[in-house]
Amino acid sequence: MATRTVGVIGGMGPAATVRFMGRVLDLTPAACDQDHLRLIVDNNSSAPDSNAAIAGSGPSPAPVLAAMARGLQRAGAEILVMPCNTAHAFVGAILAVSDLPFIDLIEAAADEAAAQGASRVGVLAADGCLQAGLYQHAFAHRHLAPVLLEPRAQARFMTLIRAIKAGERGPDVREEMKRLTEELVGAGAQALVAGCTEIPLVLDPGDVGVPLTDSLDALARATIVAATRTPASPRP
Amino acid sequence: MATRTVGVIGGMGPAATVRFMGRVLDLTPAACDQDHLRLIVDNNSSAPDSNAAIAGSGPSPAPVLAAMARGLQRAGAEILVMPCNTAHAFVGAILAVSDLPFIDLIEAAADEAAAQGASRVGVLAADGCLQAGLYQHAFAHRHLAPVLLEPRAQARFMTLIRAIKAGERGPDVREEMKRLTEELVGAGAQALVAGCTEIPLVLDPGDVGVPLTDSLDALARATIVAATRTPASPRP
Repeated sequence: MATRTVGVIGGMGPAATVRFMGRVLDLTPAACDQDHLRLIVDNNSSAPDSNAAIAGSGPSPAPVLAAMARGLQRAGAEILVMPCNTAHAFVGAILAVSDLPFIDLIEAAADEAAAQGASRVGVLAADGCLQAGLYQHAFAHRHLAPVLLEPRAQARFMTLIRAIKAGERGPDVREEMKRLTEELVGAGAQALVAGCTEIPLVLDPGDVGVPLTDSLDALARATIVAATRTPASPRP
Repeated sequence: MATRTVGVIGGMGPAATVRFMGRVLDLTPAACDQDHLRLIVDNNSSAPDSNAAIAGSGPSPAPVLAAMARGLQRAGAEILVMPCNTAHAFVGAILAVSDLPFIDLIEAAADEAAAQGASRVGVLAADGCLQAGLYQHAFAHRHLAPVLLEPRAQARFMTLIRAIKAGERGPDVREEMKRLTEELVGAGAQALVAGCTEIPLVLDPGDVGVPLTDSLDALARATIVAATRTPASPRP
């Protein structure tokens, strides 16, 4: 079966990109190497921090993201993905320089959360992702009400994400992440979205008492569908 | 510190490429995303099987490897690596089309094995890798004697590698891999090289009674050194 080469705008963070690639592999039905999708990956962590850019305290990553998109298209990518939630605030810069189909992580995660049947869905996401309203917007289109952490808990979440990016994965980190999910459930969330790619590095679905959508897994599934989908035939 | 972008000729197999990327991340001292090396990765598993090509029963992967090398150089790679042992039989095709430094996995693994102080070193490697004499040649330059599986055990090893490539990682697979390492130790090996990137997916260093060099880890370490090395100053 002909498949389309996937271009991966990566590096935000680099560990999430590697995990995304691993999940695409795991979720692809394959009996031998040759059955796997072709991924061309730019695992480039030099893009300025999206959170600082959205807060107005740092430069925009948009030029780096656009350059990666152009480079991946030139290198042979036929569809594009970006395994980072917050960077989706800058998707416009990618769409402006590439005519390739872009498989949107936020849309993929919101679709999976909507399929859970809950109406109030908790979102664990970085400051910039929330300030840009990415999940709030995607949820509104699907008649889902977002449940967010109160500001002090959100600050604890950001501290935790920085620790995970620095390589911490120990029991303290895992316990704190679990507590934050419990705060969202306590605030009425009937399901959760792990809307930051570092979360699943320290949180298993079994740690949470409600359905948990892993945004990176949702993107992996949507990527496999998009890369293997037969283009629609023209109407008769 | 300025670093050099690493081009990864990947996909043979794709899981090994993902593991290589993860090991480069793990072994890079980094406090935040921006401290990590840039890797541009072509995880392309469409290259014909190297083992069949070396045995004369299938087409050569050389044109696909050369095309990946050219594409990665065009995309901005400054050094090249290939996280697959057997494909190193076709390194000539890469060096013929790219003038970038190529960090050789076989050399990196042989260097680490030599540093263990053993003189007889067992090699677990695919048929093609052994037929091409890659480790035998690298060992000869380092005054190491290779210890190989006898033919029937080598056939068991190849069956096992195919099972791992198809996703098997269970206790049976792990036990059989451990038995094969024991046969090499029984034949006099004082140290071992995991000379096939699938091996560490089912074998931990603690499973083996002698020092074990993971060829993929050796390449990850050599890659980090090469990408971060300050170019030598001209002699005064």
